[in-house]
Amino acid sequence: MKKYKNPPQSQWSTLTQRPTQSFAEIEETVKAIFKEIQTKGDTAVAKYTSLFDGIKLDNFLVSENEIKEAEKQVATELKEAIAVAKSNIYKFHEAQKSSKIEVETTKGVFCWQEKRPIQKVGLYIPSGTAPLFSTVLMLAIPAQIAGCEEIILCSPPDKNGKINPTILYAANLCGVTKIYKVGGIQAIAALTFGTRSIPKVYKIFGPGNQFVTVAKQVATQFGTAIDMPAGPSELLVYADDSAIPAFVASDLLSQAEHGTDSQVILVSNSQKIIDEVEKEIVDQIQALPRKEIAQKAIDNSKLIFIEKESDALDFINEYAPEHFIICSNNEEYFVSGIQNAGSVFIGNFTPESAGDYASGTNHTLPTNGFSKNYSGVNLDSFLKAMTFQKITEKGIQNIGKSIEIMAEAEGLQAHKKAVSLRLKSLENE
Amino acid sequence: MKKYKNPPQSQWSTLTQRPTQSFAEIEETVKAIFKEIQTKGDTAVAKYTSLFDGIKLDNFLVSENEIKEAEKQVATELKEAIAVAKSNIYKFHEAQKSSKIEVETTKGVFCWQEKRPIQKVGLYIPSGTAPLFSTVLMLAIPAQIAGCEEIILCSPPDKNGKINPTILYAANLCGVTKIYKVGGIQAIAALTFGTRSIPKVYKIFGPGNQFVTVAKQVATQFGTAIDMPAGPSELLVYADDSAIPAFVASDLLSQAEHGTDSQVILVSNSQKIIDEVEKEIVDQIQALPRKEIAQKAIDNSKLIFIEKESDALDFINEYAPEHFIICSNNEEYFVSGIQNAGSVFIGNFTPESAGDYASGTNHTLPTNGFSKNYSGVNLDSFLKAMTFQKITEKGIQNIGKSIEIMAEAEGLQAHKKAVSLRLKSLENE
Repeated sequence: MKKYKNPPQSQWSTLTQRPTQSFAEIEETVKAIFKEIQTKGDTAVAKYTSLFDGIKLDNFLVSENEIKEAEKQVATELKEAIAVAKSNIYKFHEAQKSSKIEVETTKGVFCWQEKRPIQKVGLYIPSGTAPLFSTVLMLAIPAQIAGCEEIILCSPPDKNGKINPTILYAANLCGVTKIYKVGGIQAIAALTFGTRSIPKVYKIFGPGNQFVTVAKQVATQFGTAIDMPAGPSELLVYADDSAIPAFVASDLLSQAEHGTDSQVILVSNSQKIIDEVEKEIVDQIQALPRKEIAQKAIDNSKLIFIEKESDALDFINEYAPEHFIICSNNEEYFVSGIQNAGSVFIGNFTPESAGDYASGTNHTLPTNGFSKNYSGVNLDSFLKAMTFQKITEKGIQNIGKSIEIMAEAEGLQAHKKAVSLRLKSLENE
Repeated sequence: MKKYKNPPQSQWSTLTQRPTQSFAEIEETVKAIFKEIQTKGDTAVAKYTSLFDGIKLDNFLVSENEIKEAEKQVATELKEAIAVAKSNIYKFHEAQKSSKIEVETTKGVFCWQEKRPIQKVGLYIPSGTAPLFSTVLMLAIPAQIAGCEEIILCSPPDKNGKINPTILYAANLCGVTKIYKVGGIQAIAALTFGTRSIPKVYKIFGPGNQFVTVAKQVATQFGTAIDMPAGPSELLVYADDSAIPAFVASDLLSQAEHGTDSQVILVSNSQKIIDEVEKEIVDQIQALPRKEIAQKAIDNSKLIFIEKESDALDFINEYAPEHFIICSNNEEYFVSGIQNAGSVFIGNFTPESAGDYASGTNHTLPTNGFSKNYSGVNLDSFLKAMTFQKITEKGIQNIGKSIEIMAEAEGLQAHKKAVSLRLKSLENE
């Protein structure tokens, strides 16, 4: 663990820096595979599935039978836990529904905004050691509430051509319309262009390794939207003397076990807390199955003593953490002052795990400082805001002159004419 | 004008296609300039300003004196028109403010969502033949309502090192905090990296030529967000016998005068309307100063007869127009059925020009079919949605078990431990 004491502001840009990731080399590979899938479709998808996932598949679509089988394999206890999570996630995202916004801006000029669903969305769920069925809930539930017509899920098959049963169970439970056994770059490319068997979608969501991350960036060059740019997961904890060191250590470790590149930061105005958390980490890490991964992330973690709360808040806003835990006697100061964070966890009994799984908030959040400019996934991520207007004869008479003058000043005579013609027709009446 | 009669669905993908734009060559140039500005800052900005805008500048910042001078140069009549537009745009965007969304998802589990402003935003306003001061209103007003701390505007200087006075007037009126005389790729690069004189921003908004468009795409690779990808402006009109041909023609022409690559489409179930609109276009185009530009766009325009309204609606949703005008006896059918459009204009007295300038809706809208997956600029474009949660002792007892089971099933023991420790501490009490 690296320790810093009241680091001067000149050092902040270094302290808030994330490891730079160079994607230049990968980008070439990704673009080549995209090109091949664009032209050869399913044949190319099968080729790369064989190459990267080690399984030859003729058919990528998961059958109803496979879904039924999967349902049997998921333990009742896990199903019940998923039901609790689903209920909370549903409630929180359902509450985000917004109603039509209507304004008569000038007498006779009626403007309104409505949100309508993105019709076709693609959800990418990585496989590998941890089957991220929780991410299925986080993406499929808001997609379903939004009313997306096609909710397509892609996840890589294992060596036997199967997808983890809990992923299938969760997908079916949350309204996914079709599930395909396709992973990595080839999945993102297939969703971008569409193939004979896999539909093209308008927006792609979900986490993934560096290949998937770059593939999603490349997808945007072909007109497909994505949820957000991605980077390694992060947690920043602010803890003062009111914090319980064992809890703080467990939160930092739960972040650290994600990967060796996880970003783990503790900021405190108490040297005592910093020392105790450090000691707790050393103790708790021993028992973890993913100890080696966690240890590497912890080695790079930062324990930062900052005496003044206002300096701490400024630093945190500059860092812009994905997850931000506040354990402070002065929590309201941090809650109201935080400008840049993906999701905020307040108090000793609010671990990040709660938001990762079951409290109801979304866990697909901006990393890498992107909480300065991106929202986490929420209901609106699956909707588009559209505007409407209807102007009466009286209405165009009220604002017509202003439009004519502005169009004229911008040198756009046809724009002016479109109004003049209408105004004239009303004079004649 | 190209005419189509009940085109079969097999032809739709061709009919809805936009001209493909190849940015590969430009991308190299853009990336080279980005690199130079990243390393050399203002010196490189000055170099490219001299090269592209033909003026050597030591200082890019517009002074207060220049703003005062500009104010004197704008005619009173134009100021009054701008005031009308500002008032309507303000009302419509102010109404988009959303309140905190709070849900107690499970007893003791309090989750809420709040929107907070993107602290630093950059607005790009092109110059050239038409000084787009209307775009200043469309971007600066919602930025100000959102509460963005720094609202930076960049616009290219003319040969005398000046920015159009109406742009300066509008910027000052709408709360822009700083205005810089920088245009093109160099402006976008400066806003992306920051230089000694020009601040780095978190999100860049605004239209521009193909160089600016590609520069904005490149900016996203360096972590800067952008409003949306851009393409040539578009209008699709659906008109039945209730439409007034002269008005429809004037709307199509106001779109056509934007540029030779403007997309202009009329869909109708009435051959009579199609014929009359065509005749009106031929008549009206003669009087336009931008006749030659408009003529080229009109030559490529499409007049499409579709007999059935449901087929027409399907086609329009497939095309996903930026601007969509509905002049129909059955307007409610189209209003409720349109899924993909940037902004919708309803009835004979609602010209697109109204939304371009003064009705209150935003004119920064998704083109190129992007209304399938992107919103037009609105208040939320300047905000981030953040989530918060606070869990009580009772709350973690209510959902803790579910979190433990799910974390275990995903193989993330430290996530489980963070909950177990807390549950255990409560047992002991």
